[in-house]
Amino acid sequence: MMKKGIFITVEGIDGSGKTTQINFIKNYMEEKGYSVVLTREPGGTKIGEKIRAIILDPENKEMDSITEMLLYASARAQLISELIKSAIDEGKVVICDRFVDSSFAYQGYGRGIDIELITRVNDIAIRGIKPDITFWFDIPPEDALKRRKTSSSSDRIEREKIDFYNRVYDGYSILAKTYPERIKRIDATRDIEQVSMDIKIWLDKIINRAL
Amino acid sequence: MMKKGIFITVEGIDGSGKTTQINFIKNYMEEKGYSVVLTREPGGTKIGEKIRAIILDPENKEMDSITEMLLYASARAQLISELIKSAIDEGKVVICDRFVDSSFAYQGYGRGIDIELITRVNDIAIRGIKPDITFWFDIPPEDALKRRKTSSSSDRIEREKIDFYNRVYDGYSILAKTYPERIKRIDATRDIEQVSMDIKIWLDKIINRAL
Repeated sequence: MMKKGIFITVEGIDGSGKTTQINFIKNYMEEKGYSVVLTREPGGTKIGEKIRAIILDPENKEMDSITEMLLYASARAQLISELIKSAIDEGKVVICDRFVDSSFAYQGYGRGIDIELITRVNDIAIRGIKPDITFWFDIPPEDALKRRKTSSSSDRIEREKIDFYNRVYDGYSILAKTYPERIKRIDATRDIEQVSMDIKIWLDKIINRAL
Repeated sequence: MMKKGIFITVEGIDGSGKTTQINFIKNYMEEKGYSVVLTREPGGTKIGEKIRAIILDPENKEMDSITEMLLYASARAQLISELIKSAIDEGKVVICDRFVDSSFAYQGYGRGIDIELITRVNDIAIRGIKPDITFWFDIPPEDALKRRKTSSSSDRIEREKIDFYNRVYDGYSILAKTYPERIKRIDATRDIEQVSMDIKIWLDKIINRAL
C-alpha cells in the first residue's frame, strides 16, 4: 500500500524535449502501478487556463514583470489547491510540466525580479507542497530555439529574444547547482531513448524512497 | 506649480454610495485645477480588466482564496506600473475605486487569509505607492445590500452572504482605527450632499498639505 504520492516536476526551455519525456514518465509510472495525473503550468485548472491565456496572449505587450510573476503564482495557487494537493494525498503520481523553478528561471533570472520576492510570493501560493524530484532538461538555448518552429503563432514568452533565454538557461544552471538533491540535470541534447534511460534510473530511485 | 500628484482611494461595501461621491471628488479636484485620473480595482488597465473578468465571473466557483488574493494583487501591480505611478509623478490626482484596503477587508477579514501574507504580497505589487488619503464609506452591510439591486447578474463577490459582508465591514472598522491618519471614516448613511460636504473638508486639507 502506498502512503503518499510522488510529485514530479519537469523544467527546461521550450524545445528541450520535455513533452516527449513527460509521456515516458507517465507510462513508466503507470507500469509501476501508480495512478498518474499529468498537468501543466501555467494552467491545469479551468481558472488556471484562463490565467494562462492572459499571460501568453501576445497582445498583452504592456504586461509588467511583477504582474506576470503574480499571475503565474495565482495559477499555481489554484493548481495546488484544486488538483495537486489532493492527488498527492491520494497516493497518486503528479507530473507537472513546469513549477516554481520556472518562475525563478524566467521571472527571476530572465526578467530580473529579485529571487527573494519570488520566493516570498510562491511560498504563499504553494502552501508547503514541494516536488520530490525535478528534471531539468539541459539543452543550449540556441539548440532549443532551432527545435521549436518559430511561427507567427508563438506566444508572448516564446517571442522573447535569445538574450532572455540565455539568462533563463543560466538561471536553471544555478538552481540545479543550488538544489542538487531535488533537481536532476538531464542532458537533453542526446537521443530520446538515452534521455529516457537516465530518467528511468531516477524514477526507480524515487519510487523506492517513496514506498 | 504642483510638484507631485495626490493619490485618493475610496473604500467600502458596494451599495455604500461610492460611485456618486467619486464623481463629486473628481469634479471638485478639477475645479481646483487638477488633472484627474479616475480608475478602479480590480481593473483599470487592459490587462487588469481581463484579470477582473476572471475574478468576478460567477462561473469561477472553485476559486481558491489565495488565488483570488494573488489575482487582485496582479491587477494592482499592473495598474500601479502602467497608470498610477506615472500619473502621480506628473502631478495629477488619481482617484482609485478600491485599493489595498479592499484586499485586507475582503480577502483578509472576509475570507480569513492572514493579514501578514496579504501585506507581503501587496508590498511587492504596489512598489511603495501608497494613498495620501482613503475615504471609507461606512454603512451597515444590511443597508448597503438593500441599496444594491440584487439581480441574477450579480458577480461572484456580490453573491457572498451577509456573514461575509459583516466580516468585511468589521475589517474596514479595524483598518480605519489602525490608520486614522490616512483612512477617513465617512458616515455614508446620510444624504448625498451631507456626505459630499464632509469629503470637501478633507479634500481641502489634503490639497493644502500637497501644494
